[in-house]
Amino acid sequence: MPVMIDNEKIEFFSECDTTRAFPKALSYPRKGSAKIDMIFPEVFFPSNKTYQEIGEVAIRKLVQKHHDLVRESKIGHLYPKDDEAFKEATKIIEDFFVQMLGGEEVYTSKRGHPRLRDRHFPFEITEDGRDIWLMCFKKALKQSELPKELLPELWNWVESLSLRMVNRRTSMFGLKRYPFEKVSKYFEN
Amino acid sequence: MPVMIDNEKIEFFSECDTTRAFPKALSYPRKGSAKIDMIFPEVFFPSNKTYQEIGEVAIRKLVQKHHDLVRESKIGHLYPKDDEAFKEATKIIEDFFVQMLGGEEVYTSKRGHPRLRDRHFPFEITEDGRDIWLMCFKKALKQSELPKELLPELWNWVESLSLRMVNRRTSMFGLKRYPFEKVSKYFEN
Repeated sequence: MPVMIDNEKIEFFSECDTTRAFPKALSYPRKGSAKIDMIFPEVFFPSNKTYQEIGEVAIRKLVQKHHDLVRESKIGHLYPKDDEAFKEATKIIEDFFVQMLGGEEVYTSKRGHPRLRDRHFPFEITEDGRDIWLMCFKKALKQSELPKELLPELWNWVESLSLRMVNRRTSMFGLKRYPFEKVSKYFEN
Repeated sequence: MPVMIDNEKIEFFSECDTTRAFPKALSYPRKGSAKIDMIFPEVFFPSNKTYQEIGEVAIRKLVQKHHDLVRESKIGHLYPKDDEAFKEATKIIEDFFVQMLGGEEVYTSKRGHPRLRDRHFPFEITEDGRDIWLMCFKKALKQSELPKELLPELWNWVESLSLRMVNRRTSMFGLKRYPFEKVSKYFEN
């Protein structure tokens, strides 16, 4: 479905009808309309209740568990090989999670504004790469056995935020969405 | 400048004010607005006058010259190493140029709809890569000594179309534009 941008109808690349006859060059030049790759949807930022309920140590453990899984996954090559460097990198992400989930300014006090999309550009993040990263988070979240009522906020934040890290498109199609309602069964029992 | 999309104000990533204090998690969740990476601008498709004036052979030579330059450039690794395979790949692009500039359906009859963005996904094309490719085209165009009146249409087509091949973003900023007025001096004398 095309969107209206500044009163002009703009289509997404994925809507290009490639079965239509391709136009022939005529005696005058033509214009092809602007197109959008995709609109990165809104992000659901969590409240501070995760920090209030489980505290800093449990949040750090969750991030560590996630990254231990990511390191062993198909996107493990994006992370430092060296153990110490890997721990350092994970520590920065722990800080981010602690602060975003309601803790002190342990991240911004050291590194300023997250600028997450910008900071991820050196790493090649495909649509599939984001899926793998997210599925590792799902596993880590389950293994962490956090209070069930914290999961929807935590998940919807990470799911929506992770979309924005994709910087290497490999297909015309929109990114996959995994709202909490769709994955909630995984966390049962 | 944000755009209005379906009556909602949507900002570009590059407009994120990273100097603003980063918001603290509160007792209730928040939402962050959707964002656009970029809108690929309109493409200027050429008339058939290039084909009518210089014909198929000269168009093929232009494409060959362009690709000989590209092969020696920093993005040469994106093209086949083997000479025969390189010629084959270039031949497909020649066909595309011949048809787009007013010739027979030598491209679509063999390969159907161009689906150019889609077909370029296997190749990692950064903003800088597109610039290099385009500057090689500029050089090839100059060396080809085509009738001056053909240049604006040819250039503006290639310049606008090449934007759409960028599939690996490395910065928040919009892609560089080189309208013919900005490069026309290069083609003088």
